[in-house]
Amino acid sequence: MTDTWVEGAAGSLFDVDNLPWGVFSRGGEDPRVGVRIGDLVLDVAPVAAAEMLDVHHVFEERSLNPLMAEGRQVRASLRTWLTGLLTDETERDLVEPHLVPLADVTLHLPVEVADYVDFYASLDHASNVGRIFRPDAEALLPNWRHLPVGYHGRAGTVVASGTGVVRPQGQRKAPSDQQPTYGPSTRLDIEAELGFVVGSPSVQGDRVSVASFADHVFGLVGLNDWSARDIQAWEYVPLGPFLGKSFATSVSHWVTPLEALDAAWVDLPGQDPTPLPYLAEGGPRGLDIDIEVELNGTVVSRPPYRSMYWSPAQMLAHLTVNGASLRTGDLFASGTVSGPERDQRGSFLELSWGGSEPFDGGRTFLEDGDTVTLRYTAPGTAGGRIALGEVTGTVVPAR
Amino acid sequence: MTDTWVEGAAGSLFDVDNLPWGVFSRGGEDPRVGVRIGDLVLDVAPVAAAEMLDVHHVFEERSLNPLMAEGRQVRASLRTWLTGLLTDETERDLVEPHLVPLADVTLHLPVEVADYVDFYASLDHASNVGRIFRPDAEALLPNWRHLPVGYHGRAGTVVASGTGVVRPQGQRKAPSDQQPTYGPSTRLDIEAELGFVVGSPSVQGDRVSVASFADHVFGLVGLNDWSARDIQAWEYVPLGPFLGKSFATSVSHWVTPLEALDAAWVDLPGQDPTPLPYLAEGGPRGLDIDIEVELNGTVVSRPPYRSMYWSPAQMLAHLTVNGASLRTGDLFASGTVSGPERDQRGSFLELSWGGSEPFDGGRTFLEDGDTVTLRYTAPGTAGGRIALGEVTGTVVPAR
Repeated sequence: MTDTWVEGAAGSLFDVDNLPWGVFSRGGEDPRVGVRIGDLVLDVAPVAAAEMLDVHHVFEERSLNPLMAEGRQVRASLRTWLTGLLTDETERDLVEPHLVPLADVTLHLPVEVADYVDFYASLDHASNVGRIFRPDAEALLPNWRHLPVGYHGRAGTVVASGTGVVRPQGQRKAPSDQQPTYGPSTRLDIEAELGFVVGSPSVQGDRVSVASFADHVFGLVGLNDWSARDIQAWEYVPLGPFLGKSFATSVSHWVTPLEALDAAWVDLPGQDPTPLPYLAEGGPRGLDIDIEVELNGTVVSRPPYRSMYWSPAQMLAHLTVNGASLRTGDLFASGTVSGPERDQRGSFLELSWGGSEPFDGGRTFLEDGDTVTLRYTAPGTAGGRIALGEVTGTVVPAR
Repeated sequence: MTDTWVEGAAGSLFDVDNLPWGVFSRGGEDPRVGVRIGDLVLDVAPVAAAEMLDVHHVFEERSLNPLMAEGRQVRASLRTWLTGLLTDETERDLVEPHLVPLADVTLHLPVEVADYVDFYASLDHASNVGRIFRPDAEALLPNWRHLPVGYHGRAGTVVASGTGVVRPQGQRKAPSDQQPTYGPSTRLDIEAELGFVVGSPSVQGDRVSVASFADHVFGLVGLNDWSARDIQAWEYVPLGPFLGKSFATSVSHWVTPLEALDAAWVDLPGQDPTPLPYLAEGGPRGLDIDIEVELNGTVVSRPPYRSMYWSPAQMLAHLTVNGASLRTGDLFASGTVSGPERDQRGSFLELSWGGSEPFDGGRTFLEDGDTVTLRYTAPGTAGGRIALGEVTGTVVPAR
């Protein structure tokens, strides 16, 4: 790879082999599409207009959806074009005036989320939750190794990194309580996840195969699926989590395009039993992404994404096997990423073992004012590492 | 009430006390907003433009969302305006050229659905399902009488009445099977429901009280929540229904505005125990709406909406109690409406008692080619009855 001429970018986590997409604004201007390089944002629209790109209008929009809807070939062509702009010194005079320091912009929710689906794809997480909630039974339910268990979440409460998260109120009843009570959640939690954003839609009644993953998925976001465990525990039978999740889901400002992760694909840890053919064709693969969970400035966990049981391509194939269509902007998330070690658990529920084993000097669940930041890195295509979008949020007292 | 001058409308189920909203098109023209009167559709945009209504642009849109976003006062004002147009003979010359026979138009999905939530608010339905699936346990789960149980469905697969429903494929495993198998659902079902469409949004972190129901809900649709019971039974623990539901949900072409149902409110059958205060304030009420379930031309069930345990206002208050925001176009549904009698059950699961008691001369679940139509009527404000939007669909063989 040729080095970039952008100062400070070469060798950083946002080198020219990364180039995530986002939506930014300056001053009172309308939000529009940007690409991150180093600690700068490239204002793509004027450069694309100057170079008379067919698709230059998609960069003037306030979400990535129109860009994502252009499909895989356009995404790849734009990546080649951007790489040229940022590595060829002769382009510098054209491009440099449109590089804006990150500190001078406001970043926005990058995607207009269509449907949001959350999976449950970590064997360690599902096993931990099973042991915590059902200590006398099998940790895994009978269906877990046969299909990627998932459910729909609330798309309208997906917020951008940095948005305050109001502690939810609601109804809960501990097994020892006679009656349910109402009040602010006392078991507010995080879930460290990875999110996958759909670019190209599919037709209702059709299926998207495991092998077609890259034809439909545009890129990846960091994702924190905030969870109120007390509300969730009381409400979730028989129709699943609802208000314990629907108050807020935070995603990163930056969407890492699939091509930036070409060097991050690894074999899955192994699946036993072999899944049904619709989940197996095309060789499902995992992603070697390291996650850090930071609480008020201290790293409290390092979940390894490569330990996930179900692959993202299997999740997508399962999601559509019944003919459910995809729309541009659909978001599906991995579920909590937890590794086999104690310091690899992706939720406070697991880190504190249901609240019974305080961690990090006495913590169990989230307190008002706590800030949680999730950071993600992966091998880049140039031999170093790239950062995916980080996602952060601070707990605001209940209203 | 003054009679309408529109021929054939007075005394019909679509008299001037009804006036549901929809989206229609003629020939190759763009879809736009219409109002039904008798067997005619009023093309509202040109009349509103001629009368220089402030909001005339909302009638040129291809969904009701911009109209619905205008809020409760505008909705009420427009109803008064429309009633005047259709009852005052002096308006006839202006209006009549814009009345189009239903037979000459194509009707479309009326709402761009934001988030879709499905509740489980019928005591008889929840009890029947409990008895069928868990014959040796309490029919109702412990939380059921304390909160309206609900979950998020897939907004992107909500389709307009008349759209063919492709039989879903998927994974299922009967208790007697050793391993799960893959194939077309063999237990395809309907759920006769009522849907509520949100017009005015709310702010994330806030709550919508029971008393604020009419400030946020625009109107009602007929809704069939198609369900694949075999897929659902295998997948639904612990995160709830997913692919057993997400392949298709059908809604009526017509959205009945809340004001048309002013005479339909009735007391709930009764709630024991008394719900927590956030579900009680403002006096929750039920709706006296009769439903007919028609299979291939024969009425097989007549579920009474007035038998529902939880009120629509309680569902909305619960949905937002954790601070989850509402968006224009949010759709929430009642869950299957079933009354206490056998011929009042709103699903084939219940009508055939889990497939063990065939009904209607040997039927259990849906066969390819079956057409199901749900029809809804309620007391109108003029002393007669009004029809809500019917919803129909035909089962298409699996692809």
